[in-house]
Order: sequence, then C-alpha cells, then structure tokens
Amino acid sequence: MKNTVNEHIELNQVKVKDGFWDKRTRLITDKVIPYQWDALNDNIPDVPPSHSVENFRIAAGITTGEFKGMPFQDSDAAKWIEAASYSLINEPNAELEQLIDELVDLIAYAQKDDGYLNTYFTVAKPDQKWQDISHGHELYCAGHMIEAAVAYYQATSKDKLLQVVCKFADLIDNLIGPEEGKMKIYPGHPEIELALVRLYEVTKETRYLKLAEFFVKERGHHSKFMSQEKSFALGRKDKWFQLDYHQAHLPMEEQTTAEGHSVRAMYLYCAMADLALETGDAKLLEQSKTLWDNAVNKRMYITGALGSQGHGERFTIDYDLPNDVAYAETCASIGLVFWAHRMAKLEVNREYADAMERALYNGVISGMSLDGEKYFYVNPLEVFPKQANYRHDHAHVETERVGWFGCACCPPNIARLTTSIGQYIYTQNHNAIFTHLYIGNESSFNVNGKEVNITQQRNYPYNGDISITVNPAEEVAFDFYVRIPGWCDSYTLKVDGEKIAADENMVNGYVKIVKTWDKACKIELNLEMPVKKMRSHPKVKENAGKIALQRGPVVYCLEEIDNGEDLMNITIPKQAEFNVIDQPDLLDGIVTLVGDGYRITAQPTSNQLYQSHEFTEEPVQLTAVPYSHWGNRKPGEMLVWVRES
Amino acid sequence: MKNTVNEHIELNQVKVKDGFWDKRTRLITDKVIPYQWDALNDNIPDVPPSHSVENFRIAAGITTGEFKGMPFQDSDAAKWIEAASYSLINEPNAELEQLIDELVDLIAYAQKDDGYLNTYFTVAKPDQKWQDISHGHELYCAGHMIEAAVAYYQATSKDKLLQVVCKFADLIDNLIGPEEGKMKIYPGHPEIELALVRLYEVTKETRYLKLAEFFVKERGHHSKFMSQEKSFALGRKDKWFQLDYHQAHLPMEEQTTAEGHSVRAMYLYCAMADLALETGDAKLLEQSKTLWDNAVNKRMYITGALGSQGHGERFTIDYDLPNDVAYAETCASIGLVFWAHRMAKLEVNREYADAMERALYNGVISGMSLDGEKYFYVNPLEVFPKQANYRHDHAHVETERVGWFGCACCPPNIARLTTSIGQYIYTQNHNAIFTHLYIGNESSFNVNGKEVNITQQRNYPYNGDISITVNPAEEVAFDFYVRIPGWCDSYTLKVDGEKIAADENMVNGYVKIVKTWDKACKIELNLEMPVKKMRSHPKVKENAGKIALQRGPVVYCLEEIDNGEDLMNITIPKQAEFNVIDQPDLLDGIVTLVGDGYRITAQPTSNQLYQSHEFTEEPVQLTAVPYSHWGNRKPGEMLVWVRES
Repeated sequence: MKNTVNEHIELNQVKVKDGFWDKRTRLITDKVIPYQWDALNDNIPDVPPSHSVENFRIAAGITTGEFKGMPFQDSDAAKWIEAASYSLINEPNAELEQLIDELVDLIAYAQKDDGYLNTYFTVAKPDQKWQDISHGHELYCAGHMIEAAVAYYQATSKDKLLQVVCKFADLIDNLIGPEEGKMKIYPGHPEIELALVRLYEVTKETRYLKLAEFFVKERGHHSKFMSQEKSFALGRKDKWFQLDYHQAHLPMEEQTTAEGHSVRAMYLYCAMADLALETGDAKLLEQSKTLWDNAVNKRMYITGALGSQGHGERFTIDYDLPNDVAYAETCASIGLVFWAHRMAKLEVNREYADAMERALYNGVISGMSLDGEKYFYVNPLEVFPKQANYRHDHAHVETERVGWFGCACCPPNIARLTTSIGQYIYTQNHNAIFTHLYIGNESSFNVNGKEVNITQQRNYPYNGDISITVNPAEEVAFDFYVRIPGWCDSYTLKVDGEKIAADENMVNGYVKIVKTWDKACKIELNLEMPVKKMRSHPKVKENAGKIALQRGPVVYCLEEIDNGEDLMNITIPKQAEFNVIDQPDLLDGIVTLVGDGYRITAQPTSNQLYQSHEFTEEPVQLTAVPYSHWGNRKPGEMLVWVRES
Repeated sequence: MKNTVNEHIELNQVKVKDGFWDKRTRLITDKVIPYQWDALNDNIPDVPPSHSVENFRIAAGITTGEFKGMPFQDSDAAKWIEAASYSLINEPNAELEQLIDELVDLIAYAQKDDGYLNTYFTVAKPDQKWQDISHGHELYCAGHMIEAAVAYYQATSKDKLLQVVCKFADLIDNLIGPEEGKMKIYPGHPEIELALVRLYEVTKETRYLKLAEFFVKERGHHSKFMSQEKSFALGRKDKWFQLDYHQAHLPMEEQTTAEGHSVRAMYLYCAMADLALETGDAKLLEQSKTLWDNAVNKRMYITGALGSQGHGERFTIDYDLPNDVAYAETCASIGLVFWAHRMAKLEVNREYADAMERALYNGVISGMSLDGEKYFYVNPLEVFPKQANYRHDHAHVETERVGWFGCACCPPNIARLTTSIGQYIYTQNHNAIFTHLYIGNESSFNVNGKEVNITQQRNYPYNGDISITVNPAEEVAFDFYVRIPGWCDSYTLKVDGEKIAADENMVNGYVKIVKTWDKACKIELNLEMPVKKMRSHPKVKENAGKIALQRGPVVYCLEEIDNGEDLMNITIPKQAEFNVIDQPDLLDGIVTLVGDGYRITAQPTSNQLYQSHEFTEEPVQLTAVPYSHWGNRKPGEMLVWVRES
C-alpha cells in the first residue's frame, strides 16, 4: 500500500542551528511552553482561565465541577504536549518531561473504559456523543491528541499516550466507517485524518490509514447528517456557515476550489496529500494539485496568508484579496506549511517549498510578537487603526497583538511548528535528498543503508549565501537536490569549488546534483537577493497600481513609526531603488529597505472634502521593515501594498 | 416667536417646467404613484404584499386580520399621500384626488377616539403603546402622517386629514412634554419634529412648535427610558445600535458630529434648522452649522451620499468613506436635500445649495431607474458585482436596482421629493429672493405686497447657460440673489444685456443684484462647465491617488458596458482631457465624457498571483456617464474614483 519512494524524516535526524530560528525556538522552549503550561493550568493572574487541565481532572473524576471553555478545549492541552515533545527532541528537559508525564497520566485517567476521550462530551454532554459533528470538534480533538501521542512517543519512546489514542482510534474505527452498521460521518473540522495517517506511520496499523481514507473520501457525500444537526442549524440562515464552510458542499472528488473555513481546508488537504503519498492514489494527487493551484495561485495573500473574509474565517472567490479586512489566520498559514511540505514529497516542484517559505517567513511568524508574549490571530496586510478599531466590517481585525486567547488555537500552533521546524527542511526519496528550506542544521540521513551527514550554514532570510556540507560515512551514490527559490532570478552553485551549470541540471526549480559522494563535499549556493517590487495578478482589485517590496522570501511593509501617519498618501516611483540596510539592533536584528518615495506635502489649505486642485508632493525617504516584524514597537498604521507612481 | 425674515414658499408658487425634471415628475405622476397605490393595496402580482392599506382596514374594524409588514408600514401610505398631493398641486387629477379621499376616510376610521393613530400598535400591540420608542416608529409614523395631511391640505384645501393629525398631535402633546406628569421621551427615529413645525406653519398652533422643540432639545437627556426598552435590547450587545445610533448618546446641545443612522440624523437636523428659523434660537443655528460642517466636510461622499457603513446604516468616523461598502442610502441623500434647503434659509452661504444640488443630481436620483420601476436603497460609488454579490461585508449592496421593497422607504421618498422639487429652487427673505437651483420654472412671489413673476429657462445640469426673467406686476425694489455654484470657477452674469461685475457683488457665493425692478428684466447667467478632475481630502484613505470626473454638478462614473471589465485596471493620466459629448438618445439624453486613459494590455503570460514584472499598458478611450444613470443598461462593474497616472 505504501508509496515507497518517500522516506519519513524523523525530527531527531535534523538538528536546527540557525540564527533566525534558534531565537524563536529558544523563546518557545524557555518562555512560551512554560507560559502555556501555566495557562492550561489556570495559573496566570489576569488571564481568563483556560480550564483545559481542570476539564481533564473533572472528566477523570479526580475533582468535580463543570466543563468550561470551548468544545475543543482539549486540543489546547494536546497541542501543548505536541510542542513540548518536539522541544524535548531538540533539547532534553527532565522537568518538562515530568510535567508531560503527569498530564498524560491525567489524560489516561480521563479516558472512558470503551476508549472514549473528550472532556467536553464526557462532562458536559454525555448523551450527545457523535451528534455534533459539524461544530462539536470531537474528532478534531481526537486528531490533536493523536498527534500529541505520536510526537511524545517519538520524543521519549514512552507509549502510554500512544496506547490511549490507539484505544480511542479503535473505538472510532468501530463506530465509523464504510462497513455496514457503522456511522457514515466525517468531522466538521478536519484534523483526525492527517493524525490517523501519522498514527499509521508509527503503528503500521492499516485500519488507521483506511479510516483516514474513509473520512477524506466520504466527505461531501451523504452530508445530510451534518446539515440536520442542531449545532449546524445555528448557522442555517447564514450562507457562510453552510456545507461549504466545512468543505462538505460537494463530494470530495468533485472539489476543485479551496472553499470554506481556511484552517479546516488546509488540514483536509494535508490528509489528501498524505493519502496520495501513502496509497499512491493518482486521482488524489491530481486533485491535490488542482486544489493547490486554486488556493495558492488565486486565493493566497503575498504573505502566504489564507482566508479573505472574517465572517466564516474563510476563503471567498478567486482574486478576492482585500488587504484591510483579510482574515489571514495564523493557523491557516501554518496549515499551508503543513500542506506544502506534503505536496513537496509528492512532486518535485519548487512551487510547494516556495509557498511554504512564503508562509513561514511572513504570515506565520507575524502571528507572534518578538517577546513571545502576544499573538495575532488575524494578519491583514494593511492596518489603519482608526478605521479598523471602529468599523463593523473590521471587527475581526486586531490592530495590536493580544495575549493568550479564549479560543487559543494560534499560539500553541506556532509553538508546535517552531519546535519542529527542522522536519520541513529536507525530504528524502530513497536515493534522493531534497533541500527545500535554507535553515542552518546538522542532519543525518540513511541512504541505501549508509549514513550521510549534512550541515547547512547560512544567514537566511536576509542573506542568500548558503553553505551545505554533504559528508557520507562511506562512499554512496545519490542525487542531492538544491532548491532555487522562485523569487531568485540569478544564482551560482559550486560543488567543491567548481561552478556547475545549474540550468542544465534544473528539475522544476531544483538543481539536481548527481554524484557518488565519498567525503565531505562542500556545496556553495549564492542566491542573489535584490529588492523586488512585486505586483499582483491584474484580477486582484485591491492591489491595482500597487507594489509590495520583497527581498528574498521576506515581504516588507511600511509602518507609521518609520514613515509617519496616513501611509495611503505615500507612493513609490517606478524608478525608485531601495538600499538594503543591516540593522542588527532593530527588532532582534533585521534588514530594512530604505528608498525614495513621495508623499503629499501637507494638508490642503481648504477644509473642502472634494476639490479639483492637484496636491503637491515632496520626496521622502521610506523605510520598510519585514511584515512579520510589524507591530512590535508601538501601535500605528501598517501597509504592505503601496501605490506606485 | 417667528423669525420673520423668511417667507415660506408654497409649492403652488413655483411651477416647474424643466427638461430634466419634467421627465422624472411625469414618471412619478403617471407611473410611480399609480404603481405605489397598487402596491399599498396589494394589487401587484409577484410582489410581496405591502399590506399597508389592509392594516388601516383592520385597525378601522372594517375587516379582520393580523397586522403585517414593518412597524412603520403606515408611513408608506402617508408618504404616498404626500407625493400624490404634490402631484395634484402640479397637475389636478380628479381620479387621484378621489383615491386619496378614500384613503383619508379610511385613515380617519382607523383613528381611535382619543386621537391615537397607528395600525401596528392598534392591531398588533395594543397594550404596548409608547413603550417601544427606540424601534417602534410610533412617533415617526405620526410625523409622516402629519406631513401627508399638510401636503394634502395645501393641495386641495381639504382639512379632513389635517383634523385627524391635529387630534393625534394634541394627544401626543398631552402625553409627552416638559410639563410635570408628561412623559419625557423622544422618538428613536426623528421625523415628527420637522412634521410638527410644518403643522405649526399651517395651523399657527404654537403647542406644536413647542412640542417639536421639546423633542429636539430633550434628545440625549434622560435616555435611560430608551436604552431600557425591550426592543432597544435587541441591539444591546451590538455597539452599532446603542444610543448614538439614535443620536441620543449626548445631550443634544453637546452633539457636534454627525453620528448614527444617517436618515435619522438628517431628519433630526432638519428639525433643528426649522426651530432655529422659527424661534431665532442662535445656539441651535450655531450647532446646526457645526453639525453641517462635520457631515458635509468630513462624512459625505462626492455624490452627496451619507452613511459609510451598512451595519447600522450609519455614519462612522471622519474621512472614513469606503466606496464599495458605502451604505449611502437614497433616503439619507434626500434628507440632506431637506436639511440643506433649511440651512439655506438660515444663512446666505452657497455651501448649502451646493450640497443640495450635489445630492439631487447624484445620490438622490441614482435611487430610481430611468423607467421608474426599480430602486437602489444603497448607492455605493464602486460596484464589482462578483465581490459585491459574494462577500459578507457587501451584503447590503445591491448590484442592480430592485423592485418595490419589503421596507419601502426609498421609493415613496423619491416620489415626494421629485413631485415637490419646485420648492427647493428659491427662498425668499422679505425683500430678497435667492435662486439656489437652476431648474426651469414659472413662479410668482409676493414682495412687499407686490406680485413678481420669475421664470427660468435652462438646459441644466448639462449646460450652464441660464436665462432668468424677473417680471414684477408693478415697480418694486428688492434684492435678487443668483447662486454661483461652488463647482464653477468662471462665469458671466448679464442683467438686461449688461455684464455686471459679479465678484464685487458676491455675498458668500451669491451675486446680489440690487435693483428696483419695473419691467421684465432678463438675467443671463453663463456658468462655465469644464470637466473637472476632483480629488478627495488626503485623509480619505480610499481615494488616495484617485480622481473623480465631475462636470457642473454631475459626478461621472465608468461602467463596464462602456469600458470593459476589471475597471480597477484603468488609469487616467494627469494630462488627459475629456470631451463633452451630447448623447440625446442615450439613457434618456445625457452628456458623456470621453477621454484618454490607459489599461493593462492583457493578462500576464504567467498564471502567477505575484511576480515582479511590470505590466504593459495600452491607451484606451474611456467613456464616463453620469453616476446617477448607472445600472440602467445591463449589470456590470461601476467605478466613480479612478486611479490617476
């Protein structure tokens, strides 16, 4: 059944050592994971209690009380375990492991004898299990618990939580599936599908893979069960919460456009790609590519953000990408990273890693403040605080990052992605290793039974000089693929000091180095990183006549603190060139872009709202900072797409 | 009490004979009023029944049944009577008068013995009178019935309906007011205030004027009665339906910005101006001017439209004027005409007539299709149907005019304004006559007891040559003021063939002609009407870098039918000149503007959403049509503010 061409890369194969990411991982490990532990345990003054751990205690019968929080509150604990487990892989920590063990014990206590595990339904709605599939998040929480269990098992080889989730998965498999007598249902919020594939990878239990396949392929069929639910009815009159919100509007095999809640969509598409990989299903692969093309080439912001509308947190229509009212949820960009990584395993095409990188360096990391204490759920590309704080149609927009949320999906999602960032750098396809991301690391691979060590040194994303060492323990022949990012028009590649004709060896954006490797071999890649003025497809109404500054994978923005207020009155002339300024002391060390622009000189002399005189403009020096770093100094306006003059 | 400097101009003094307006008045008289009569009587197949007349029958006990429709359904009948009455003044029609008489009889039957008159509360909520002040529209409907009665009395001298409303007004005056024991309440939706002033003007009963004054000045005081109402609570959690929605957030005398529901605001401000005029209250005048400055110079669209947000149909904050999600209700622009007309009586300043004219020729008449059959409630300045028909934040936007509505406020409002357009042309201040609007008419005035006939001939708004004849029955000295519109930079004015130094005689935008008039005197005014590229105040984010074409008072737009799709890709170069093309056969006869623009040549070769190549542009010929006439051919995109290149 397994599509054998792809090897799974374990996180412990790849040790990240990277100036850019280590700071973030450090922050997650030292600050965010302990903070989130306290949050889950309601130990943070002035922050509304999460009640997540307490819910497990109540479900376990250790204490009494009512369930509190969102129906998916369990998933916060699960995502924390997942992130904490990754941090253990990166760096052992007996104290943290002890905390996880205690939480795992508690979760095991909370599991019912038949395997059922969900504190919301156990405590609050014991008679309504499997009846609130559209919004109850029962299978969603199961999915996150499975991911947590797999991660913890991989980190510690401790299988207690794995046994718990297998028992729960067995229960689900007994209740739901294609066989007669089983329920033909699938979750409102996908997540369990990709989790079941991970569980299959660890346990080799094909029932889990088949159940994942059922959930994906059954989707959109017989959807009445969902639309007739009581909780579905909450949105019955609201066209934004119909079946398409759940990606259940069409039989799955007929879906060709990215629709509905964007995080739900991403998690679902991840599972489609997983299944295509595991089962070799060519139809699933083709459909994944079709959905990818629609999502990434018609419905994605330049920051790798997804979701053009706050109401329904969702996709809308092709090329509808308003900047100021974007939803652009951090979790959706994280989902895009997950999906892109899977697609990159399925097909040699840099488009996937390009999007992964775009999301990572922009729409994902924008979600967390540089001190790790505050978060953006929503990542619009243009913020004018006066309007955004006032207007009803901007109600979903936060003009400043905020603390731990009531619905705390994004912070733990950032934590689990950051602590596992190493697994997105490479993929291996038997006798081929692909380098997708330029993140410093020391890694080891098994190629044809032989150990190969690979290291990367770089100062990405602000510098395009990348040094890779490939060092096999003994002689071994394999192909090493080096990605030339889509944003890069000019580059050189040297292998052991010898320039190689990269274009001749280019395979869909990767330079293929065919070689018998027998000693430490040095690959030097230089990616030129000029400042680029990016333009949107002309069908994107909001960006007509506007440019966005991008250098390497980093999208830039103007902030009020650097450029004054009323950013809409700034233009960048066609001929303007931007200088690249290294600013090691600014915003944890960034590169700013400084160049010439114009802005209206002063307010018009008259108070008139409309008049026919031209405004005078004066040259101004503009300073752009990475979009991901905006809002870390003081509140104010922010603008990615600037008018070109 | 009366501020004696202003004379009331009766509609029958001014007989409109005007190429532009006669067509519309004809349409209202021949088609809309009969159609609306059928609609009120539920006689139109395929249109949801209004039930308005039926409600009166039920309330009168003539038939049985339930109240149906909006709580303010009575006002539809009232506005119809008002419009029909004006049409009788313009043109007697025995059959129509008979219909009105029958409806008046019915309304009189429906009135309770104590004077109470409201079918919603009589039939549906008999025990809840005067308890749903925020949303029940009880006083609002009373106001419209009073306006109807006054109009019908002025048209026919029949006072049956006038007696009905006086009895009702007396009841209200007994229940509500400053005196001890009376309720200290004021309506959620202002309207009765201005109506009571009209009733006072006809009846000279000062109690009505004082009650109007109470309603206005009490506003915002002791507002607990409103916020504690059950119906107010419907919106308690919604910040857009709080006290400011009702202009009751601050004591009236402290309100300096136009807030809340824009139609409510306009009707309230009309009453403030009425009271300032009738009572000579200097504070009310100053406050009116402050509110005017805020509404017109910070919160008005270039089309004279008001209301920047659909949710709450309301004002937002200064300079927040999004084009695509504007509410810009037709009724609010009509309200602005009402208010501007009153302000023009209070102060010699062309700003008022400028705004009145701007609203009339743009945001008001855009509300009705050229065949009189379809209506826009909402008048955005930019419509991209794909987005507008899909997005949740555009849910209030109609991309095409629609038929008679469930909430049918706009169509009868257009009807009553159009049939009474004559009363907005002139004001008289004892020995001074002011010409505010250039609409063809034959009028007669009484100046110092002597009859003065005035005629206007013009081909406005597409031609700036205006011929006015002032013809007194006998010699009389008075000042005749001729408005030079704010949009006009160059003009000539001749009196009996002799050019007069207009600038020296300019008073706040009016040329003052001081003269003893003794025979037919011909005033020839030539207003130059070049095509102007209008710009917004730089604080208006949405219009940065954009221009709107305006010629005379007419704001133009680009339509897809003339200029192809994707209008956002069109630019107008700074040096572009537009030719004025007379198109007598297009859209009932308009003048189009034709000039050079650019647009992106073709779709980019790549499917990429973001890339760094410049697009090639090609010159194109652009055709702009009056904004008010858009959407009369076929559905498509429309754009007022075009990017300048």
